[in-house]
Amino acid sequence: MKNKLPIGILGATGMVGQRYIQLLENHPWFEVAWLAASDRSSGKPYGEAAKWRLDTPLPERIARMTVSPAETAGAPKIIFASIDAAYARELEPLFAAAGCAVVSNSSAFRMAPNVPLVLPEVNADHLHLIEEQSWRKESGGYLVTNSNCTVMGPVLALKPIADRFGIEQIFATSMQAVSGAGYPGVASMDIFDNVVPYIPNEEEKMEEEMLKLLGTLELNPAGHVVKPLQARMSASCNRVPVIDGHTVSVSIKLGKPAMREEILDAWVEFRPLAGQDLPTAPDQPVQWAPQPDRPQPRLDRNRGNGMAVTVGRLRPCGVLDWKFTVLSHNTIRGAAGATILNAELLASLGKLS
Amino acid sequence: MKNKLPIGILGATGMVGQRYIQLLENHPWFEVAWLAASDRSSGKPYGEAAKWRLDTPLPERIARMTVSPAETAGAPKIIFASIDAAYARELEPLFAAAGCAVVSNSSAFRMAPNVPLVLPEVNADHLHLIEEQSWRKESGGYLVTNSNCTVMGPVLALKPIADRFGIEQIFATSMQAVSGAGYPGVASMDIFDNVVPYIPNEEEKMEEEMLKLLGTLELNPAGHVVKPLQARMSASCNRVPVIDGHTVSVSIKLGKPAMREEILDAWVEFRPLAGQDLPTAPDQPVQWAPQPDRPQPRLDRNRGNGMAVTVGRLRPCGVLDWKFTVLSHNTIRGAAGATILNAELLASLGKLS
Amino acid sequence: MKNKLPIGILGATGMVGQRYIQLLENHPWFEVAWLAASDRSSGKPYGEAAKWRLDTPLPERIARMTVSPAETAGAPKIIFASIDAAYARELEPLFAAAGCAVVSNSSAFRMAPNVPLVLPEVNADHLHLIEEQSWRKESGGYLVTNSNCTVMGPVLALKPIADRFGIEQIFATSMQAVSGAGYPGVASMDIFDNVVPYIPNEEEKMEEEMLKLLGTLELNPAGHVVKPLQARMSASCNRVPVIDGHTVSVSIKLGKPAMREEILDAWVEFRPLAGQDLPTAPDQPVQWAPQPDRPQPRLDRNRGNGMAVTVGRLRPCGVLDWKFTVLSHNTIRGAAGATILNAELLASLGKLS
Amino acid sequence: MKNKLPIGILGATGMVGQRYIQLLENHPWFEVAWLAASDRSSGKPYGEAAKWRLDTPLPERIARMTVSPAETAGAPKIIFASIDAAYARELEPLFAAAGCAVVSNSSAFRMAPNVPLVLPEVNADHLHLIEEQSWRKESGGYLVTNSNCTVMGPVLALKPIADRFGIEQIFATSMQAVSGAGYPGVASMDIFDNVVPYIPNEEEKMEEEMLKLLGTLELNPAGHVVKPLQARMSASCNRVPVIDGHTVSVSIKLGKPAMREEILDAWVEFRPLAGQDLPTAPDQPVQWAPQPDRPQPRLDRNRGNGMAVTVGRLRPCGVLDWKFTVLSHNTIRGAAGATILNAELLASLGKLS
Repeated sequence: MKNKLPIGILGATGMVGQRYIQLLENHPWFEVAWLAASDRSSGKPYGEAAKWRLDTPLPERIARMTVSPAETAGAPKIIFASIDAAYARELEPLFAAAGCAVVSNSSAFRMAPNVPLVLPEVNADHLHLIEEQSWRKESGGYLVTNSNCTVMGPVLALKPIADRFGIEQIFATSMQAVSGAGYPGVASMDIFDNVVPYIPNEEEKMEEEMLKLLGTLELNPAGHVVKPLQARMSASCNRVPVIDGHTVSVSIKLGKPAMREEILDAWVEFRPLAGQDLPTAPDQPVQWAPQPDRPQPRLDRNRGNGMAVTVGRLRPCGVLDWKFTVLSHNTIRGAAGATILNAELLASLGKLS
Repeated sequence: MKNKLPIGILGATGMVGQRYIQLLENHPWFEVAWLAASDRSSGKPYGEAAKWRLDTPLPERIARMTVSPAETAGAPKIIFASIDAAYARELEPLFAAAGCAVVSNSSAFRMAPNVPLVLPEVNADHLHLIEEQSWRKESGGYLVTNSNCTVMGPVLALKPIADRFGIEQIFATSMQAVSGAGYPGVASMDIFDNVVPYIPNEEEKMEEEMLKLLGTLELNPAGHVVKPLQARMSASCNRVPVIDGHTVSVSIKLGKPAMREEILDAWVEFRPLAGQDLPTAPDQPVQWAPQPDRPQPRLDRNRGNGMAVTVGRLRPCGVLDWKFTVLSHNTIRGAAGATILNAELLASLGKLS
Repeated sequence: MKNKLPIGILGATGMVGQRYIQLLENHPWFEVAWLAASDRSSGKPYGEAAKWRLDTPLPERIARMTVSPAETAGAPKIIFASIDAAYARELEPLFAAAGCAVVSNSSAFRMAPNVPLVLPEVNADHLHLIEEQSWRKESGGYLVTNSNCTVMGPVLALKPIADRFGIEQIFATSMQAVSGAGYPGVASMDIFDNVVPYIPNEEEKMEEEMLKLLGTLELNPAGHVVKPLQARMSASCNRVPVIDGHTVSVSIKLGKPAMREEILDAWVEFRPLAGQDLPTAPDQPVQWAPQPDRPQPRLDRNRGNGMAVTVGRLRPCGVLDWKFTVLSHNTIRGAAGATILNAELLASLGKLS
Repeated sequence: MKNKLPIGILGATGMVGQRYIQLLENHPWFEVAWLAASDRSSGKPYGEAAKWRLDTPLPERIARMTVSPAETAGAPKIIFASIDAAYARELEPLFAAAGCAVVSNSSAFRMAPNVPLVLPEVNADHLHLIEEQSWRKESGGYLVTNSNCTVMGPVLALKPIADRFGIEQIFATSMQAVSGAGYPGVASMDIFDNVVPYIPNEEEKMEEEMLKLLGTLELNPAGHVVKPLQARMSASCNRVPVIDGHTVSVSIKLGKPAMREEILDAWVEFRPLAGQDLPTAPDQPVQWAPQPDRPQPRLDRNRGNGMAVTVGRLRPCGVLDWKFTVLSHNTIRGAAGATILNAELLASLGKLS
């Protein structure tokens, strides 16, 4: 792929926007060509408009690029979006209507019936929903979303189990990193030496997105729809003093009995993207940590360049059937990397040309 | 009570030992009279033997006391113990056999059939088990224990609910402070910017102690026994970067339906020690925090001088019936304060004279 | 003092405003009577307007008080102020002109020639400057300030040394807590696992306020003026991941030689407020910690109810003469407590009636 | 260099030992061939003996290697050592006597007159001291050391300034990361929400090593000796809650006046190893950060793969001439990487064959 596809970033100065830039530096298929942010930043060089918070240097080329207003004029045809839901609700349809492929990390349209909420390893087939979108029919543009950063780890860990044994009940308690709240996000006075047992709307998102992601695409007379997984689900979300990496304690009730080894096999053998050569896809998306005290965010969040999730502590549950801990890098696997992987999947399906 | 009762502390240099000293300073009934620790410390002035880690000054009188060897000779008749299980298994029976009232925070004998595992607000009647102990019959000595620091918060929150509605299933995920592991305990390299999803034996302790604490005292032909609560229970324990205060996410299935207000009433009206004038007992042992983002360890752990637990976020659970968050100060309510309150209860029952 | 003096708080919802409320609860002389904050908060009950971040409960009476607009109408005659410099520059003169005693923690007027910058133990005589203020002459109102939170610890430690030996050069490197930046203040993403070696304007404030505090009141033909200490001073300020408590490494060159014991004596014997019975004044304002690894913020910040500063590690300096570490509680001794102590001093001098 | 040189690691299970392994994975010249540790670990597979604390996976090949006893029999001819001073004092001479090139991070012999204390960018010529060692003459073996982790950043920043302007006085206040204390090292109870203003022997090491590193090699009748820099130096060392990266506030008095731009030029133009192609040497060892609030450990410690130091905040000093902040990665640039770079320099000089 000699000529890289030009990418526009909507919400370029935020934490996820910064990760897009970091992860796309040296990307073999994509190249950052346009950076948009709020009016406050628009017109400034990116290096001045953004408070770069990552531990790799801001690429010089990007630092010099001028931040554009969040308007369709002049934007490239592929847009990576990560903006507040209120803005996304207004802006993303404008870009889709203007013929852009909007690959979004925003939460605004994830649960819309004709918008695919996709994690390539889990439900790539849900992308068919694009064809139900009126934008697609009219301008060629469309909108694809990835999930909330917290649901990403559990859903990857649960997919191979759901496929083999079925899942009837899910119990998930999260311990989430501060980077999930963006920048400035969580005040240090709120989280030092502390746990905050509440993140607005997070439990609701986690519950509904989990069931949509694990749902099945069905063809109705009216077109394709996603039927959510029929399972009971309860999420409890907590913020803890960790920079990156969401840890989730998960318990599940299965549709049919499974031995411990069978679950481990399901994880190890889960390589749904094998052979597709998507640059950002990890070889082993779900990695089993055999040590008794893993996964841990500081030690495991960067596995697979931040795109693999780590599972550990599989053991019987006294209330449901099995419990385990799953960890994922919330701003890579759970946000920017997820968008990029969705875009790679779309590219490989010929939907970005 | 003009003449204070002399107290000996077994394990005086540890984190809980330090809390005993801090909490007994100015105690109206008790006075620290004897400090014992390992051979390494024995013979030294306490101020030299202990690395004092609390943020109130080490009392001068205590600093000058000489640390005794962990032997019964010279020990007072009331012993507060907080030592490693391996040592407790050996030492606590010696003190009980020597006629001491051993009020212990150690885990060694908590689950022994004739040892009461008591939290005064929850199961004061279990103290009858003392009379089943052969030490009691022979020397007058006995052994009473308090629970693990993590189970203390949930059990206080669950007791009034169990009494009114019954509890059939319990799901608890803890986020535990580092002080729970003693000193030096958790290495900073292990817990900075991290969560450790494993604490050895903690989940087992939490599950079995919960059911014993909520169990009922029954009279068999062979004597008194505690019949554990018949409920399914699943605990998941995590260490988080917090100094003091264990936060626990709890979900429960009730024996019969309860409205939200009924559960709140159960908590607010729960004052089982009212009128008993135990000096360390909080007026309101279970305090409801109405804010959506509470309880939080840094802000709520010191309620009731560290002896009250705080509950918040009561909401329906998608898998069981109700879920909530409970917080308790792990080295006060969950350890040193629990021992002291047990001793106060014993004193008020005339069992310390 | 049967009838307590009514106090108004300007900037009542901020971190220092909250500390005023906390420290004035049960104050023997003063009573909070009026709470003012920005237009955003004005008109709301305080409990709703303020995000209470302290670990003692917000007093019920205060929670129910309605927040007033920051206007002189209806304000009591004693105002404790802690607001941003830009607002202080405009508002504090209005209150002084309206006849109020404005006792301020704001930085706006600290260096103004006729405004006393006072720490009662250090330079109580500077209060004479009040009489130079035109407000005082016209309405009886006046303005008194306390210093920046970082300079407070070093200046208390240096005052007794300056008195006995003289000080010619001062080198101070601070490690400051996040609470010094107010709320929300420092983003957790900025300070977790990090040091920020810069706090805007802090080094300048520290240098100039130090010299004014240690300066001498002189009577010129034009009236009283403060002649700053003639010393060279260099401050380097850093933010570290600590909640409360500023630690400062200090090196000094003396005017004449001093032995180690002489400096320790100077600290121990420094009790300039002895016998004055100011309720908030600590018995021993500068406390020497003999341990090799003290002072430490978590263990020493609450000495003297947060009003004593702790010094330790006195040792020869390879460049200047002596070096040591000093710690003070930045929102108590360094801010709210300093204002209250200034007000107590003013009351004892009959300037608040 | 087709056949890599086999390297032995003495102290392989410690924090620096782990970094050796991490940094030598894929090293073009060196290959880990032998791992030695204490008797407790000896005989076990490395993966079992070491508690791996780095966020990249332990290489499989290394995990399977058996840990050797710390004896010369069977050891390769190049030894990277990082062990406690007490052990180093005994063991390192044995390996040198056995003909090994001992490239050490241990502190035991750094100040020995005939042992080079070398940082390749600063004083490569001090390696001549090797020829003064009796081991060298007898067995061919020798001992080379790198400095303490805290002095490394300041000395790199000061070298180009010393060369151009001379340095007469140095004032350094450190804020050091917990990884510098090894594992388990600093207890979380000691450092959460805290600063510890004392690290045993650290200030002494920093002062004496700084002057030796910046000293000059002279030829006396008795052989080569290093004459330390004639400067006054004062170091104050503090531990702060940071995982990796030592931040140091530095003030200096120069031998002759320098403008700000001249100092910046000295840093930017400082490339003493240019053209030598040492694999671990950073292109730009001292990197200037122009932002007002840098360097910061979390954002800058990985520059140059952890081998570059970052300087910022150059400004006039009120006591000496100039002050600035310098940051270096303490376990890479300040320890393991320093040893490796010394070995690369020795290899390029033909001293490892």
